[in-house]
Order: sequence, then C-alpha cells, then structure tokens
Amino acid sequence: MSGALSPTLELALELIRRPSVTPEDAGCQALLLERLERLGFRTERLRFGAVENFWARRGEQGPVLAFAGHTDVVPPGPEARWSSPPFTPEIRDGILYGRGAADMKGSIAAMVTAVERFLIRHPEPAGAIAFLITADEEGPAVDGTVRVVEHLEARGEKMDWCLVGEPSSEERLGDVIKNGRRGSLGGRLVVHGVQGHVAYPHLADNPVHRFAPALAELAATTWDEGSGDFPPTTFQVSNIHAGTGATNVIPGDLEVQFNFRFSTAVTQTELEARVGAILQRHKLTYDLSWNLSGNPFLTPAGALVEAACAAVADTTGEPTRLSTAGGTSDGRFIAPTGAQVVELGPVNASIHKVDEHVIGADLDRLSLIYEGILERLLAPS
Amino acid sequence: MSGALSPTLELALELIRRPSVTPEDAGCQALLLERLERLGFRTERLRFGAVENFWARRGEQGPVLAFAGHTDVVPPGPEARWSSPPFTPEIRDGILYGRGAADMKGSIAAMVTAVERFLIRHPEPAGAIAFLITADEEGPAVDGTVRVVEHLEARGEKMDWCLVGEPSSEERLGDVIKNGRRGSLGGRLVVHGVQGHVAYPHLADNPVHRFAPALAELAATTWDEGSGDFPPTTFQVSNIHAGTGATNVIPGDLEVQFNFRFSTAVTQTELEARVGAILQRHKLTYDLSWNLSGNPFLTPAGALVEAACAAVADTTGEPTRLSTAGGTSDGRFIAPTGAQVVELGPVNASIHKVDEHVIGADLDRLSLIYEGILERLLAPS
Ligand SMILES: [Zn+2]
Ligand SMILES: [Zn+2]
Repeated sequence: MSGALSPTLELALELIRRPSVTPEDAGCQALLLERLERLGFRTERLRFGAVENFWARRGEQGPVLAFAGHTDVVPPGPEARWSSPPFTPEIRDGILYGRGAADMKGSIAAMVTAVERFLIRHPEPAGAIAFLITADEEGPAVDGTVRVVEHLEARGEKMDWCLVGEPSSEERLGDVIKNGRRGSLGGRLVVHGVQGHVAYPHLADNPVHRFAPALAELAATTWDEGSGDFPPTTFQVSNIHAGTGATNVIPGDLEVQFNFRFSTAVTQTELEARVGAILQRHKLTYDLSWNLSGNPFLTPAGALVEAACAAVADTTGEPTRLSTAGGTSDGRFIAPTGAQVVELGPVNASIHKVDEHVIGADLDRLSLIYEGILERLLAPS
Repeated sequence: MSGALSPTLELALELIRRPSVTPEDAGCQALLLERLERLGFRTERLRFGAVENFWARRGEQGPVLAFAGHTDVVPPGPEARWSSPPFTPEIRDGILYGRGAADMKGSIAAMVTAVERFLIRHPEPAGAIAFLITADEEGPAVDGTVRVVEHLEARGEKMDWCLVGEPSSEERLGDVIKNGRRGSLGGRLVVHGVQGHVAYPHLADNPVHRFAPALAELAATTWDEGSGDFPPTTFQVSNIHAGTGATNVIPGDLEVQFNFRFSTAVTQTELEARVGAILQRHKLTYDLSWNLSGNPFLTPAGALVEAACAAVADTTGEPTRLSTAGGTSDGRFIAPTGAQVVELGPVNASIHKVDEHVIGADLDRLSLIYEGILERLLAPS
C-alpha cells in the first residue's frame, strides 16, 4: 500500500514513526534537514539546553517567508486506549492515525513537499524561504522558538511573513485561520489569614471568608468589550486550595491561581492594577506574583493574510474565517519581531487526545494551500 | 523525691507513664478499676470495637453523681521538641510535664483521690457515685461515651449529675466552668461545573466562579444573635479545593468543607435549610452532605452548677464564670439523657501541644474542689 501514498503522507508517516515526546526530537529534525539541504537550504542546528531546534534558509534576498513548527508531540497517554499504537502510523479508511498526525507533523510534511514542488517550478523565487523548527512547543517553550528568535534578532535577521502550521481548522480544512492570539497572563495569589480552631473563630482570621467577596467581584468583572478582532478579555480561576484536611481547623492561607486571556483593549499593566485595586479594596493581606505567557498580537489584513485566504479558497472552494480565539502558540514569540504571523493547519478536534488523526487527503490539500501561498508571495513576476 | 508527692500527683504520674495514645488505653483503666474496686465500686468493662471503656458505680440508691473522663491522649508530636519525654512525667519547679497532664489524666487522678477521701468521711453517702471512663474521646468518639450511654439507657440506668474533667480553666484553676456546649454541624459540599480549557471559557462552567457569590453570602450571614448563655452561631470554611494543578484548566468540580458552631437559637434543620436556600438562589448544581457532631446543650442553674461554683470559691477564693464556648466534648453525648452536665478541670493552655503541663498544686486543689462537690451533693444530712 505504501507505494500508493503521496510524498506528503510518506513524510508524515516517517515523522510520526519517530517518538518525539516533548522535548525529545527522536531524529525528526535530522530527516527534515536532509530534505531541506537537498533543496539548497543553508541549515543551522540550534541546541538550547536540552532542546533541538533548527533554522534553515534558502535565498539571501528578502522578503523572507518562514514556515514555523514543532517536531515534539504531547505524551500519548495510555497506549492501550489507542486503536493502533501511537507511534506506528496507520491509515484506515483514508484517515491517518498517530500521535502528531494533526499537531503538527502532518503540517510539517505538507510544508516540505509544498516547498519542493514550488522550487521545481521557481528555482529562483522572488525572496527567501525559511524554516523555524523547534522541539519545545508542547513543553515549557523556553528553549525553543523564543531562543531561536533571539538568535536571529541578535544578528539582525528578520522574517517578513511567518506561516505557523498549528492545527487552526475547526470543522473542515481551512475554515479558520488564526491571524492573532489573545495575551495570556497568569497570577498566583496567596491570601494570608490567621489559622485557628473552628470553635474559636474570634482568635482566627479565615482567608477563605476574606477572599470570597473579592473573588465574586473578580468573577463578575467585565474587563473590556474586546477590540475589533478580539473577543472580550476573560478571567478564570484554575486552582484554589486552602485547608489541611482537618474539618476543625480554620486555614491560615488560601492559594489561588488564575489566568487572563486578554485582548488589545487592555494591557498587562492595567489588568495587574485592576486586580490589585480589588484585593486592596477588600482589605486583603496577600502575596501576588504574575507570569506573562504572551502579549496579544494581531496580524491585520495584508499580503500574508490575503495570500492565505486566497490559497484556501482556491484549494477547498470554501470560505475561511479569521480568528484570534484559543490558546497560546509560538506565534506569540514571532509576532513581536514585526513579522506578519498567520497560523494555518489541519482540523484540531483530535489533538492531544487518544487516537489523534487527520484526514489523509487533508494533508495533500494543505500542501497545496501552502504552495498557493508561496506562489502568491514569492513567485517571480 | 517521689515519696513527697501527694496521692493525686502519684496517681497522675502513674497514668502519664502509660502511653495511651488514642485509642490505646495502655493499662490506665486497669489501674483505675483496681483503685475503685478497693473502694467498693461495682465495675463493668465495656469494650466496643477496639475501644476500652468502663462504668463503675458505688451505691444502689440515687441520686447518681458520675465523674466522666478519658484515658486516651492525643499523639505527642515530634518527641525531640519536648523538654522531657512525653510519657516520662517530670515535675520541674512545681510544674508537672507530660502528655495528658492537663487533658485529662490529672483530672482523673484528682477524681479518684477526691472520692477516696470523701468515702473515708462518709462511708454511706446520700446517693451513688459513678465513673464513666473512655479511651475514645480524642479519636472518632464513636465507640466510647456514646456507646456506654446507650448501654446504660438500654437498662434504664440514669445519671443525675455528671462532672466531666475536661480542662475548662483558662487563666487560673476554676476561673471557667462549662455548663453547656454549642452544637457542631459539618457540611461537605461539591459544586459541579464543566471542566475546560482557560482559553475556551464559553465551553466550560467554572464552579469556583459560580460558588464565589454564594460563599461571600454564607461568610457574611448572621445566623442568629446567640441566646442567653450562647454566643452567636458561627460558620467557618475549613477546606476548599479545586483544580488539577495545571494552570490552563478550568476545574470541573469544587469541594468545600465547612462547620457551624451553633446556639440553641437555631436548629440543625434550620441551618441546613438556610444553606440550601442560598445555594439554590445562586443556581448551583451541587451535592451536599451533613454531619451532626452534637446538638447544643445547656445545664442551667441548679444543684450541680451551684455545687461546682461554691466548691471552686471555697478552694481557690476566686470567682468562677459559666461558659458555653469552645470545642465539643463527650458532654454532648451525656446531656441528652437528661443529666445535668458540667465540665470542670485544669488550665487548658498547653493541651494538645508539645510540653503539655499543669501546675502540680492545681491537681491537689482540683481534687479538693471535686471533694467539695461530693460533699455538697452526696454528704448524708
Ligand atoms: Zn502544536
Ligand atoms: Zn480531653
């Protein structure tokens, strides 16, 4: 059967067979580097800490269109629950199963084959093509894209357009393209009280009671109305813990973790100030630390967004929708360099789950979409 | 030195030497039974489950004055933090150190020696003397006093007065006598939501957010104004937990444990109904289970309270104060039988702590107080 597979599916299978559970690469990048070097890419392995990354570029002159992605995958979970082993890719009824099929070894395969076909038609493109590949997207995302971007910035190397292969599609291939992401701001709050016995509450100060009205206010607050492409900012408590387990002890401290997904209508500084004002108005004694995972970014209408929308319409015959919803991706590290960033990849319904899968034909169509974008941006006129 | 010790201190030391960490008795009760049998008590060992208890009675005719107490102690905690080993009693500067010195082996010793002296003066008292001793007060309190009381009730045996030796004193011996206790009602609440990703809150339902305004209302509610001898009813959250630890997951459930200490101005049924009404008004989906540890009880002015106050005044020359504050004790199981119940024992500042201690002379004076109560209630006229 494998002789009948398209080059994109062949490469996707090769990648899935390498069990690159984050932060392992398991030889995925060596395979990609070999393919790209054969196409004339100048490649640069960039290892930071325990993480393998690479930057590959073909062409000295800009503009630079970079494909960005990750070879690492999330752990497969209990293997017995998979219909076929997670690292033994299998195509059943035209659907490719395996860890990374949708997130995002399939996209990476589609990128490579798109570039291969494009370069056959246009050996001298009107600009440079690059790949920014990391093995740390599903992990802490510390020694991956962010470090590669720093490395490029340090020597003044820029991307003009960046096409991230994250699975952006919701119901059918290409129905959603992400042209931005909300910011993500985490907080860890410890409200201090005075521990005591429930029979003697006047000798104690219950931090759960003290925090309750502040929590109600935080949960009910409208932080903004959103802005243009962004939905309104949201606040969510992810963890709350107090108490030793004993039912007769008033806890001394309460720990709360929360997260903002925020639009460009507010800033990190404003959110921090507003939370602080609420806590202080409720006269709490507390420690609060903040962790910014990424500022919101938006790539407005322009060459990259237009090329992506047109390529989807050409290939699928269906419209596409721009979105800024959903979780963070490595796009947050690339956008601040000034690059236009768009995420466009397969349907994300099965990612991070057991029996992760993608429609095989979708990977071939995705490769055509990527080729269409290359045509629109880098074909010599 | 031990030759110079009073009989009360001698017996207290003997009891402390037996490491009766709840629910162990470690031979304490055998020692007491031997002393009481020598005085003509008819004794009855009552083992329920793994717990040793006994009932001892001298005299067929009522009224019955029962001394109640427990031989078990709480664990000593880290022994290295004790100035002397917890089960090697030591008197330093007139202060007796050891686990159980104040709670409540000292009281039990004082009870026994008080009865011994009283019976020398009055071999034929005007009523019966009894001891109700358990080894399950510091543990779950399931197979101790509650079972002995059931056993007595089943055969129609009644106590008229019950003197519990719990350490009721706050600053000096006898300054506080407990003539009642608030009720204790626990609740375990699970608020149900829908788990999800913090980036997609519209697909989730955060139980922490849902519960916040209800919690604020519960914490701010005035449940009653107290009643006569009782302070107002209090509500305290002891434990609150939600979240997997992951900072990007909206928890599916929230678990909360809380406790009411309640006066006779409300009932268990009323408190449960009012909590239910608040949870329902906030449209929560929840499971709630209740656990009544004890209803409030009160022994109003009468023979026992008067005898106790007078005996304290006689022995210490200082006034005493009636109180219903503080935690639960086994008095809650005895009061419902109709007995007058009073708790009177040493200063409680060091109980359940490292270096638990009691002033040696206080145990001798406590024995005199107990003897004074016996005189007032059971001396033949
Ligand atoms: Zn991904
Ligand atoms: Zn006790």
